[in-house]
Amino acid sequence: MTAEHEEDFPKVQGGGSLILAWQIRGKNVLVIGGGEVAAGRILNCLDADAVVTVICPTSGLNPEVAYRVAKSQVIHIDRKFEPSDLDPDKKVNMVLTAVDDPVASTMIWKLCKERNIPANIADVPPECDFYFGSVHRDGPLQIMVSTNGKGPRLASSIRKKIASDLPQNAGAAIEKVGKLRGMLRKVAPGSEAVSSRMGWMIKVSDAFSWETFCEMTEEDMENLLVFYSRGEVPTLELLKSMREDPAGEYFFDGSFGFSVGC
Amino acid sequence: MTAEHEEDFPKVQGGGSLILAWQIRGKNVLVIGGGEVAAGRILNCLDADAVVTVICPTSGLNPEVAYRVAKSQVIHIDRKFEPSDLDPDKKVNMVLTAVDDPVASTMIWKLCKERNIPANIADVPPECDFYFGSVHRDGPLQIMVSTNGKGPRLASSIRKKIASDLPQNAGAAIEKVGKLRGMLRKVAPGSEAVSSRMGWMIKVSDAFSWETFCEMTEEDMENLLVFYSRGEVPTLELLKSMREDPAGEYFFDGSFGFSVGC
Repeated sequence: MTAEHEEDFPKVQGGGSLILAWQIRGKNVLVIGGGEVAAGRILNCLDADAVVTVICPTSGLNPEVAYRVAKSQVIHIDRKFEPSDLDPDKKVNMVLTAVDDPVASTMIWKLCKERNIPANIADVPPECDFYFGSVHRDGPLQIMVSTNGKGPRLASSIRKKIASDLPQNAGAAIEKVGKLRGMLRKVAPGSEAVSSRMGWMIKVSDAFSWETFCEMTEEDMENLLVFYSRGEVPTLELLKSMREDPAGEYFFDGSFGFSVGC
Repeated sequence: MTAEHEEDFPKVQGGGSLILAWQIRGKNVLVIGGGEVAAGRILNCLDADAVVTVICPTSGLNPEVAYRVAKSQVIHIDRKFEPSDLDPDKKVNMVLTAVDDPVASTMIWKLCKERNIPANIADVPPECDFYFGSVHRDGPLQIMVSTNGKGPRLASSIRKKIASDLPQNAGAAIEKVGKLRGMLRKVAPGSEAVSSRMGWMIKVSDAFSWETFCEMTEEDMENLLVFYSRGEVPTLELLKSMREDPAGEYFFDGSFGFSVGC
């Protein structure tokens, strides 16, 4: 290795976290506690399609958690935590505790470590395999802000600033781009077409605005795909003119100065 | 529960991921493969202070990975993966594979599941406990953009846009706010002071700009803390005048219209 390489590669900046998009669809998450913090955790897990079980006496449920219990969005166990709740036959994939009881919390943490279950004990950083951050959600788009414990409220203010700066329809545009990519994969399947698919998608993304993607119909996308084999991207006008009913002017071309660049 | 509650609580938006800041300081991460994707994963892990072991024949290392091996930033095992690499005595906490070998990848995934080790098999979403996103890093600040698989390149373009919109010194300001919070915790320790500490930090954050926080010295912070017991926040001018050498005009007051709000 020569010294010149050193400048070429990103420098390691220790002290961070490994930010991950954990997949918990259909996995069992045990939430111990039913207060405000638990309510936030529960929503995070439901947004990721987890099967959530809340262990907390009914008297300790806050209105939001009680609402989710009443709507059967979560399974409710109406008592305090018992060690058998973590028995292997319960197949618990993740544990989140939010109870005002340091002794119980530490016991739960130790049980989780014995059983190799990832856990987060709220407000006790050393007893956490992972932390939560402040998350902006817009359809398929998720943006998470972490200050690595320096300022949770600061993270929330940065998250709000980011959300207000994004195009309002960012999530919808991403959904459409994802759909177009899926359709393209059917038209040009196989791993040998990966780079030509990617190259064309970049051209398409550069050619149209967020608004345009949002307004694209299935018909428009099918018409667009016709140009893939030639490696071309039509103008918006051409795409409009290809419609069965070209008079239907539902296209906007309001750019947000923000290339999709996918 | 009455119907009126339904409007009060956030609606569940399924289909997302659970975005987490995983804590892997000092934990053993096994990276199988040494190409470009592996290079990115390795950097992510080193940024989070993990102990990274790379399993890949030397001939397969890309320049960045070879550089990190040469600099002893990672442990290198110069051969292909063997199942014994996941034996319990190896204490592997996480596995990331990035090899162009679907059969080997699936075998590794199955071994990880038998051994209850969280794993990510690059480019094989069903064989992933978690996905990566595009992460902006600025000191203690980490912002992760995920499109939940709809468009990884899109995530990267959104991340760049977010980074360019943030105040250039956001990370440094967060570092200073975290330091001030730490000093405050020593001045007013104990859980009974949580709400008065938080209330005062909010006032402080609203009173000063990002730039001001960046430029604050230890002396300034100590002077600032004098006002805590009265629940007050001094003006910037008063704070400056309290310095041993008030002529040292290193304060800027360039606000970015972005309240720290912590």
